[in-house]
Amino acid sequence: MPHADTVQAIRWENKQLQLLDQRLLPHKTVYLEFDGVVVVAEAIRDMVVRGAPAIGITAAYGVVLAARARFAESSANWKALIEADLQTLAQSRPTAVNLFWAIECMREVITGLQGDPEPALLAEAKKIHSNDIAACRCMGERGAALIEQPCAILTHCNAGALATGGYGTALGVVRAGFSAGKITHVYADETRPWMQGARLTAWEMVQENIPVTLQVEGAAAHLMQQGKIDWVIVGSDRIAANGDVANKIGTYGLAILARYHGVKFMVVAPTSTVDMNIVCGEDIPIEQRSADEVLSLAGQSTAAAGATAWNPAFDVTPVALVDAIVTERDVVLAPNKEKMAAMMENI
Amino acid sequence: MPHADTVQAIRWENKQLQLLDQRLLPHKTVYLEFDGVVVVAEAIRDMVVRGAPAIGITAAYGVVLAARARFAESSANWKALIEADLQTLAQSRPTAVNLFWAIECMREVITGLQGDPEPALLAEAKKIHSNDIAACRCMGERGAALIEQPCAILTHCNAGALATGGYGTALGVVRAGFSAGKITHVYADETRPWMQGARLTAWEMVQENIPVTLQVEGAAAHLMQQGKIDWVIVGSDRIAANGDVANKIGTYGLAILARYHGVKFMVVAPTSTVDMNIVCGEDIPIEQRSADEVLSLAGQSTAAAGATAWNPAFDVTPVALVDAIVTERDVVLAPNKEKMAAMMENI
Repeated sequence: MPHADTVQAIRWENKQLQLLDQRLLPHKTVYLEFDGVVVVAEAIRDMVVRGAPAIGITAAYGVVLAARARFAESSANWKALIEADLQTLAQSRPTAVNLFWAIECMREVITGLQGDPEPALLAEAKKIHSNDIAACRCMGERGAALIEQPCAILTHCNAGALATGGYGTALGVVRAGFSAGKITHVYADETRPWMQGARLTAWEMVQENIPVTLQVEGAAAHLMQQGKIDWVIVGSDRIAANGDVANKIGTYGLAILARYHGVKFMVVAPTSTVDMNIVCGEDIPIEQRSADEVLSLAGQSTAAAGATAWNPAFDVTPVALVDAIVTERDVVLAPNKEKMAAMMENI
Repeated sequence: MPHADTVQAIRWENKQLQLLDQRLLPHKTVYLEFDGVVVVAEAIRDMVVRGAPAIGITAAYGVVLAARARFAESSANWKALIEADLQTLAQSRPTAVNLFWAIECMREVITGLQGDPEPALLAEAKKIHSNDIAACRCMGERGAALIEQPCAILTHCNAGALATGGYGTALGVVRAGFSAGKITHVYADETRPWMQGARLTAWEMVQENIPVTLQVEGAAAHLMQQGKIDWVIVGSDRIAANGDVANKIGTYGLAILARYHGVKFMVVAPTSTVDMNIVCGEDIPIEQRSADEVLSLAGQSTAAAGATAWNPAFDVTPVALVDAIVTERDVVLAPNKEKMAAMMENI
């Protein structure tokens, strides 16, 4: 079992995949068990698990479950049969490239397999999981090192242990920076419509006694105007080859506000989030989710009957607004296409 | 009874003040009745009624109720006794200057009164109410005239009929602009934490068949990036002598995003919102409200236990980010201190 000191969103127990149902947090801590790939894809789509690295890891374990079933169905023909399952997983959500990256990792292993595929595929899934935790710890150290003096930071959505194999990307930097005395306070956007900031980021911070203050997204500019923060630190769902960053809706606005106020803007993501096949951010597919997510909260209608809503789940921040992209391989300051290419070739 | 074609937040019926309980909208339409000044002040504080012009009108009627009670208590000494009531009203909320403006209007009438004060004070309150509706209609025409071609606009919070005597400030421009074919679609920020956009603005628009789409605040930058809107149109709670604008938290960020994207930014407010005694926005008192408003919604806790929240109700947009201030007296383009002074002297 890959080990993380922090809360685990994803577990492999008794030959099954267990996912912490993040829709119920912070009020209930419930692990759901999955024994087949179709329900795993549904769990990704329905946000039982979310966060780009966590989605990738979940998909990898989903492939293990798929291979078990397909090999039982036909030990001779399972490699052809499993293609439909890989498609099912790939269609669960469109923006986080870690999903497709993880499926490709698993497909490469499948290609070379003979006999029962489960042991080798489980080993690969666990490796993806372990590597992600290690990457988060590495990024945490690298990101924290960029912070010159003790300060408060602002984060958006949840790029924490819950969004990854463990430890977190943006919140990995927070964890490392807090330990090192570099980060003294975390301001967290509550992050409508899913409230990942209020429900998940605040929960992670409270558990580790890291001082956290929630605010509505509308208060971010006022916070910066008062000089309360030095850095905005966020994760990413996909980074284009030129360094443009897709992340939770609201991130792009924060980047503009940060630049306007002279606040630095850091993106923290493993290289599995970098999509060198996408030239620039305009080409990143942006998921549109149901209007109901905006029109209601916790099952209660909040909006006037007859009103409609626009609910893009992500936006794209142009690389020119990003001061640093931190991956497990390197820190890219003032990123651009050439620096991103150099970082990705630096294996 | 002052007449408005639109929904009425404030009514004077059977010698009592009636307020539409805006906390229950859009699900329930309930008018609460008030027969004393203390409960009126509580209603303002607790957001039964909100919106700077509506708060001012409510306070004026509150003074009528106070005068009735104080005159009954002591026909000789009521003018001294009522000062405590004026203080109670003035302490209900700190940012909207219309509150203090309306109290001053009523105090001036009180000074010259002899005998039963109720008829003259009720006439003054009704005049304040009627004048506000007339001002809204005038601002609606002036603001709509600034829009050169049919376009979609973005608004924040609710600066509508519900926030005024009727018709609205920013939504007055929307009503006039929609009638004139200048405004084709309204995007409305849902406006956390009180959801005035989702609950009130969408409700007003749906009732009049003006196309409205809700979005989370975080989506505003993405909306502008896609070129979907030409104007941001908002109201104000207080405008300083130099043109700096206090308005609902989130407005300042929108102004920065608008400027970044080449979107025009219009503030619509009656001259009762302009405070010539405040030199610049830094001196405007910003109300801090309870953290609970951020940590819960509709009585349900939404955040992790142990988390705290920062809940400023307003922010200040520097005048340099404002393209037009529209009042019932004039349109001030590229506003500054000198132009504001000229507009305010132009009676």
